[in-house]
Amino acid sequence: MSAAPKVTFELCACDGNARTGRLHTARGEVATPAFMPVATKAAVKAIAPEQLDALGYRLVVANAYHLALRPGVEVVEAMGGVARFMGFGGAVLTDSGGFQAMSLGRLCTAQPEGLRFKSPLDGAAVLLTPERAAEIQRRLGADIAMTLDHCAPYPATREQACRSHELTARWAERMAAASRPAGQALFGIVQGSVYPDLRRESLRQITALPFDGFAVGGLAVGEPRAVMLEMAALGADGLPWQRPRYLMGVGTPDDLVAAVGLGFDLFDCVQPTRNARNGSAFTDQGRLSIKQARFARDPRPLDGACRCRCCGSFSRAYLRHLYLSGEILAAQALTEHNLAYYAGLMRAMQAAIASRTWSAFVAARNERLAPASGQQG
Amino acid sequence: MSAAPKVTFELCACDGNARTGRLHTARGEVATPAFMPVATKAAVKAIAPEQLDALGYRLVVANAYHLALRPGVEVVEAMGGVARFMGFGGAVLTDSGGFQAMSLGRLCTAQPEGLRFKSPLDGAAVLLTPERAAEIQRRLGADIAMTLDHCAPYPATREQACRSHELTARWAERMAAASRPAGQALFGIVQGSVYPDLRRESLRQITALPFDGFAVGGLAVGEPRAVMLEMAALGADGLPWQRPRYLMGVGTPDDLVAAVGLGFDLFDCVQPTRNARNGSAFTDQGRLSIKQARFARDPRPLDGACRCRCCGSFSRAYLRHLYLSGEILAAQALTEHNLAYYAGLMRAMQAAIASRTWSAFVAARNERLAPASGQQG
Repeated sequence: MSAAPKVTFELCACDGNARTGRLHTARGEVATPAFMPVATKAAVKAIAPEQLDALGYRLVVANAYHLALRPGVEVVEAMGGVARFMGFGGAVLTDSGGFQAMSLGRLCTAQPEGLRFKSPLDGAAVLLTPERAAEIQRRLGADIAMTLDHCAPYPATREQACRSHELTARWAERMAAASRPAGQALFGIVQGSVYPDLRRESLRQITALPFDGFAVGGLAVGEPRAVMLEMAALGADGLPWQRPRYLMGVGTPDDLVAAVGLGFDLFDCVQPTRNARNGSAFTDQGRLSIKQARFARDPRPLDGACRCRCCGSFSRAYLRHLYLSGEILAAQALTEHNLAYYAGLMRAMQAAIASRTWSAFVAARNERLAPASGQQG
Repeated sequence: MSAAPKVTFELCACDGNARTGRLHTARGEVATPAFMPVATKAAVKAIAPEQLDALGYRLVVANAYHLALRPGVEVVEAMGGVARFMGFGGAVLTDSGGFQAMSLGRLCTAQPEGLRFKSPLDGAAVLLTPERAAEIQRRLGADIAMTLDHCAPYPATREQACRSHELTARWAERMAAASRPAGQALFGIVQGSVYPDLRRESLRQITALPFDGFAVGGLAVGEPRAVMLEMAALGADGLPWQRPRYLMGVGTPDDLVAAVGLGFDLFDCVQPTRNARNGSAFTDQGRLSIKQARFARDPRPLDGACRCRCCGSFSRAYLRHLYLSGEILAAQALTEHNLAYYAGLMRAMQAAIASRTWSAFVAARNERLAPASGQQG
């Protein structure tokens, strides 16, 4: 029996900094640029894995921290790993949990050996070291594992940001040295908050290590959009061309288009799923809040250009009624639509790059969105 | 253009009192005995109409009272009626709202002219007369409308029960006299609480009117199961053989088998959908509470004999994790399974009656369930 093939990345075409490629994993191929739906607890909220598959998603993001707390690593391992546990035919990237531990605030302290926190489930003391993060992600059967990073809050002082990226670099070294399964890729994460020199130093430290891919982390945590894009651009400039590049936690459709233009390949964000549960739908004419009274008798689908099941079955009037009535079906339908919209956007970007019409694609998109100023009729 | 065909009922076979037949409606054919999923607010909770269709459901129950309050009759009418509004390819029976008004308790008073209550949405005074109930159900585009009835609470004094069935009878007369669309059937409802003589009187009054079908109402409201079945039996005995018979609000799988044995054809109940949201699954070995610790590492599907998407995709361990994590997908998956289970049970009963093996079917089922005493391993 040969070992599972290593995750590999193949660049297919580029147009300016924008690239399209293929990520080959033991659990299938992923066309990039790709958006990864968020399956924190081994489930994308309000949608079945079968539908993710039907929408063309081949890679989702789960969270090692959350899964280690519940149902526990041993359960997921016994069930054959995250993907099999959740009945998903595609591949799974697991974030290590540095970001989630940070969001616990004072309940979590970063020490040179790792993150020390109390379990929010039972109060038990937990020490998450880089070695433990590697072990957890191995046992979860992740196709792509992420290094344990330390994510500074926003705003962060220069001292906080400095300590953060230094811890991230030390932990990255230890994680790169830890053993991992043959078929599993490991991505390093660049930190440095909003300080360009710290970002550059982090880039030097992280890219010096033999990772299979690289992520820019610590963004989209509250900083202005222009700052996020500036730091992302700086990150993309410093990352090796041949490796996949993942911009963590980003973002809106506009953010995705901007970041693909900078040369990023992978993205994850709760925007399409969380907005769906809040009654907000993405369309090519902008965002649409289904609760608005003007939709009360609107027989049109959410998005006339969309071919998802929600747009094929339901009127805006019905979706508004479902949302106002608190029906779970509202979340199901809007989640399916928003993820269909994101999948379509990624496919359109892949096609524009492959045909070297990226600039025209971006210009046409800006023109279409400009008059609507974010809300459509 | 000819008028839409009248709803008709065709008896195909019987075995003892149990019958199998076909209900022909303008929106398709329904094989009976049939279970109707509850779509109170024009949505079956946590499942899309497309899935209902895939599970074989051709008839659902919506509620005229709820839909008149929200989104309003004019909205549903403008959208082409309940079935089109909710994107359902099958037919819709609407309950008139007598039961719901009763559940408002002191906020609702029954007067000879109708039910007077305050809207729970905005406090507005509402008078629901039989004529208004007919009008609402006409505008909602129901394939089958129900008479406005008065449902006594349980327990009810003889005086309460008497007044209840008398109001029901008067309102039934007025509703039978009201005009209704050509393609719409109207079912009368028998009341009388748990008083056999009042039930018999109600039966005489209601069956004297030219209804297309008959329902036994006011049961499964808290009375002991034996009393429910006794009243149901008394109802079935007094209803015309050639018309469809609907036992309202019933019930568990055991209740359905018992009631089909008494000669009922139609059923509705929140059991499969509400239990799903509470983590409870129906199987041929009994009910299974997915939150139990014994399922933490159970790789088996909910029900090894089931071919639904939930049982094809998910382990008990995963479903337990989803439920404990508060994931919407738990409700989606268990709802689909429970409705698949109910659909399968109805098909099995239809087949047993058609092949005149009803007694053997019931005996085999009792034998299978007996050792498990309601909970399976």
